[in-house]
Amino acid sequence: MEGKRMKDNAQIEKGTTENENGSSTMRTVETLLRILPMALCMGALVIMLKDSQTNDFGSLHYSDIGAFRYLVHASGICAGYSLLSAVAAAIPKQSTMSRAWTFFILDQLLTYMILAAAAISAEVVYLAYKGDAAITWSQACGSFGGFCRRATAAIAITFIVTLCYAGLTLISSYRLFSKYDPPVAHNNRGVEIATFHG
Amino acid sequence: MEGKRMKDNAQIEKGTTENENGSSTMRTVETLLRILPMALCMGALVIMLKDSQTNDFGSLHYSDIGAFRYLVHASGICAGYSLLSAVAAAIPKQSTMSRAWTFFILDQLLTYMILAAAAISAEVVYLAYKGDAAITWSQACGSFGGFCRRATAAIAITFIVTLCYAGLTLISSYRLFSKYDPPVAHNNRGVEIATFHG
Repeated sequence: MEGKRMKDNAQIEKGTTENENGSSTMRTVETLLRILPMALCMGALVIMLKDSQTNDFGSLHYSDIGAFRYLVHASGICAGYSLLSAVAAAIPKQSTMSRAWTFFILDQLLTYMILAAAAISAEVVYLAYKGDAAITWSQACGSFGGFCRRATAAIAITFIVTLCYAGLTLISSYRLFSKYDPPVAHNNRGVEIATFHG
Repeated sequence: MEGKRMKDNAQIEKGTTENENGSSTMRTVETLLRILPMALCMGALVIMLKDSQTNDFGSLHYSDIGAFRYLVHASGICAGYSLLSAVAAAIPKQSTMSRAWTFFILDQLLTYMILAAAAISAEVVYLAYKGDAAITWSQACGSFGGFCRRATAAIAITFIVTLCYAGLTLISSYRLFSKYDPPVAHNNRGVEIATFHG
């Protein structure tokens, strides 16, 4: 990656106390975008943990299905990370390079993790509703309608969490890469002149 | 999003012909990172399209399984987009704001699409290997071993494509957001001083 030189010099020149309103608005949006998935993940977690049904056909519990166990774990990790990162994002602190990279990488990983959890659980529920004649998988939702509806609700919530995280990766990408100079002109001469003449 | 003012002034000052080596290296890496997924997607597509098996237990074709049909479509779209974007990325052209946003958004969407395709297909193959006693889904891979092995190969390739695309989103995020100023100091005064004194 080129243009690694940070624009700190220019920033110091500009006086960081000015025009912080925009920055604090973004910090508020970011904090909310981290608190919302936390609440949603907790909701999906509770719905999924309580999801079991027993009737004449037998008994079905969320832990019988691998994809749902993964969804529960992913939701738990996501709720915990969302809480911690919301606290970290709420603190009005000068963003360092390592802090920006940490947020960027963790946000990306969480987005991929929660998207994968939502996708595979949705696939299992789809199979449970439709069945698959070619591989003789039956329509489990015919017998376990309530179980499938609750699972669908948890998955829908998880997709909303995915959207929140897609938004968060936008913010954390911006926070990280706005510190770098654009690829073509990365010799920074202009900024150095500013330092000398400012 | 704050700091919308582009750093064009500073760029023009600096003389864009200098130090373009780093930029062209990144362009080469980016072009390769777009050609590689194209080849891999074509491979996964061919393996999956040819994936069928007939034996005493019956006949199984990739199109019998919804997740595999989605994988085929996603691989096709991904191969097409990779080719077009590789051509677009290879052209040494000053990156505009709309071009950077287009690459950023499409790269993100493709990453999510191909990750979801790989994840749900992996879940189906996992179920086909292991079965699920609670919802009476049988182990299809006991009878259709060759089918499952080819599907697994296609899915493994698709996961490598996902990794390539994760790298591409890094590059396209950098290209886009390095054009913006960092959040706190976004009044650009330092850059304007450079314009006057440079």
